[in-house]
Amino acid sequence: MKSITITPLKPGSVRLEEVPAPVPAPGQTLVKLLEAGVCRTDVEIFDGLYGEPPAGQASLIMGHEALGQLENGDLVVPMVRRSCGGCANCLDGNQDMCSTGNFLERGIKGLDGMLCEYIAEYPRYLVPIRPEARPYAVLAEPMSVVAKGIRQAGLIQGRLAWAPKRALVLGAGPIGLLATMALRILGWETVTVARKPAGSLKAALAAECGALYVSSAETPVTDLPAKYGLFDLVFEATGSPDVAFDCLGAAAVNGVVCLTSVTGGDARKSVPAARLNRDLVLGNRVVFGTVNASRKDFEDGLVYLERINAAFPGLLNRLFTSRVPLEKAAGVFSGQAEEIKTVVEIAAA
Amino acid sequence: MKSITITPLKPGSVRLEEVPAPVPAPGQTLVKLLEAGVCRTDVEIFDGLYGEPPAGQASLIMGHEALGQLENGDLVVPMVRRSCGGCANCLDGNQDMCSTGNFLERGIKGLDGMLCEYIAEYPRYLVPIRPEARPYAVLAEPMSVVAKGIRQAGLIQGRLAWAPKRALVLGAGPIGLLATMALRILGWETVTVARKPAGSLKAALAAECGALYVSSAETPVTDLPAKYGLFDLVFEATGSPDVAFDCLGAAAVNGVVCLTSVTGGDARKSVPAARLNRDLVLGNRVVFGTVNASRKDFEDGLVYLERINAAFPGLLNRLFTSRVPLEKAAGVFSGQAEEIKTVVEIAAA
Repeated sequence: MKSITITPLKPGSVRLEEVPAPVPAPGQTLVKLLEAGVCRTDVEIFDGLYGEPPAGQASLIMGHEALGQLENGDLVVPMVRRSCGGCANCLDGNQDMCSTGNFLERGIKGLDGMLCEYIAEYPRYLVPIRPEARPYAVLAEPMSVVAKGIRQAGLIQGRLAWAPKRALVLGAGPIGLLATMALRILGWETVTVARKPAGSLKAALAAECGALYVSSAETPVTDLPAKYGLFDLVFEATGSPDVAFDCLGAAAVNGVVCLTSVTGGDARKSVPAARLNRDLVLGNRVVFGTVNASRKDFEDGLVYLERINAAFPGLLNRLFTSRVPLEKAAGVFSGQAEEIKTVVEIAAA
Repeated sequence: MKSITITPLKPGSVRLEEVPAPVPAPGQTLVKLLEAGVCRTDVEIFDGLYGEPPAGQASLIMGHEALGQLENGDLVVPMVRRSCGGCANCLDGNQDMCSTGNFLERGIKGLDGMLCEYIAEYPRYLVPIRPEARPYAVLAEPMSVVAKGIRQAGLIQGRLAWAPKRALVLGAGPIGLLATMALRILGWETVTVARKPAGSLKAALAAECGALYVSSAETPVTDLPAKYGLFDLVFEATGSPDVAFDCLGAAAVNGVVCLTSVTGGDARKSVPAARLNRDLVLGNRVVFGTVNASRKDFEDGLVYLERINAAFPGLLNRLFTSRVPLEKAAGVFSGQAEEIKTVVEIAAA
C-alpha cells in the first residue's frame, strides 16, 4: 500500500513509499483510511524534532488524525494513543493520562500512523462515526484535544464554586478555532486572539460563531485585561511559549489556564518567576497542561462537532484550506504556515 | 488595651500603642488573646510592602495567627479572612476562594489584627480548640494553609487515577516543616529541601518525623530529580520565586505543584517559557497557587496537629524558637531570618 513514511529524527527523509498492507492480528479489524489531517506535530516530526519508529523498524508511517471505514461500511476515527497496559489510568481507559510513559502513539511514538491506505486496529481504539458526520469527522482528533481541555478544566474547578462565563482563546490554528467554536456552543462569551489581521479568514471564522476576534498585532496579549477584562478560562493554543505565559495575567481570580500546545525547542522568552508565582498564589489560580485525549474526549468532541455543524452550517468545512491526494502528501509539511487544516484524501468512501 | 500597630505602607512605623478595647457588636463575642504567631506576611507588612487599615482609620493592628479564649474559658483560634458576603465561594463558607476580592483579612487587609489583648468576633470565624491542644494551637493558622494545599491538590487530582506516594517539600520555614510533618502523618515518602545545612535545627525537625532532609547548598533544586527521582506532589514554601519554578522538573507525569508562598517584589529570576510549557503539557501536570484557608482547613489542620503531636511528642514545640511578651513584640519583625516561629505571649489562660 502507499504510505507517507519518515526516518524519525532525520529532517527531509519523508517520502511516499510502498509498504506491505498490515495483516490484522486476532481481534483486530482492517480499517480502510479515507482521509487524514495534518497538524503541527506532523510538521515537527517532518522537521526531525521527534518521532520514534515501531520496535525493530527504522521507518515510521506518519499521521495521527484520520477517518476510516470498516469492511461493513461503518465509519470510524482511530484514536492516537495505545495503553501501556499497566498503570491505573491506562486500565481505566485514560491512556492519555498514562503515568508510566510506556504508551505508543500512532504516527508519533512506536506505532505506524495513518497517512497510508490501511491500518489494522482493535475495536476499543476505533470511535464510531455517524454517516452525517462524514464531512467533518477528520476533525475528531483535534476536537478531542479541545474537549479534553474543557473537561479537565471543569474537573479541576470542581474544587470550588465556579460558574464560568468568559473564555480567552489564544491562537487561531485548528485547536484555537475549534476551542472557540466549542466554547461558543457552551454559551461562553469568548475572545479569540491570534496574529492574523482583522480581515483574515481566521478572524472571520472566529467571528462567525460569535466570538470577538482580536489581532495580537494590534493588541498585545499583555494588554488584553485592560481592554477586555479578565477571563474564567484561558485556553492556550498558539504553539508559541513566547505568549503562553503572558496570558496568565488575563485569568481572573480562581481562573484556570489550559495549555495545549508545545513547540520543539525555541526558548527565547523567559517569564518573571516572581510575577508568575504571585499571580498564581494570590488568586488561587491553576495552570495545567494537557496532551492527547481519552475515548470519552473523542466522543465528546464528536458531539461538539455535530452541534457546531448544526448551529453554524458550513463553518467547519471552511477550516479545510487545502486538500491533497495521498500521493502528493509528502510535499505538504513545509507549507503549513499559511494553512488552517490540510486534509489528505486517501480513498473515497 | 495594648496593641502592635502599624501605619500601613510606612516602613518603620510599627509601635506598641494603647488603643480602646473593641466593643462586641450584636452577635459578636469578646475574645481574650493568649498568643500570636509571627510570619513572613507580618514581616512584609512591617517592611511597608502591603497592608491596608480598616476603613476610616490610618492605622492597622498587626497579627493574623492567634490563640484566644472566650469568657467561659473555651479556647478558640480566630480565622483570618472575612467573607465578601456576595460571591458563591464566600456564601459556601470558602471565603479563602472569594472571587470578588472584597474580603477583609485580620491584620492584613481592612480589619484589625490580633497582636493585641482583645478582639470582638462572630462565632462563625472562631474555630474551637480542645484544651489538650493549648501548647501548639497557635500553629492552627499556618497548618490551615498546609491542610488547604494538600486538600486542594487531592481535589484537583480527582480528575484522574492518582495514588500519590512521594512528596517534595521546598522550604523549611513553618509552612515547609508543617507540610513535611503532615505529609509524613499521611504516610508519604517525603523529601524536604531547604538552604540550612544538614546539622541545623530545621534539618533535625524534618528528619525526626521521618522525612529525608536535603540541603540545597549541597544539592540544587534542579539536581533533585537525578538524585531522588520524581514526586507526585511538590509543595513549594520557600518564599523565594527564584526556586519556585525550578521545582517543576521534579514533578512526575500527572504530578501537581502547590505554590504557597509569595514574596514582595523580588523578580530577579526568569523561567524559560518553552521548558515550563513543555513540562506542563507533555506530562498532564498542574501548578496551582493557594492563599488563605477555609474553616474546614483550620479544622483539618488541627487534626494534623493532634496526630503529629501524638506521633512525635514534643516535635511541634521545637518550632517555637523564640517567645516574647506583647510589650516587646514591635521589635521582633526585623529579626525573623534566623527564627522558625516566634510566638508573642499576650496573656495567661
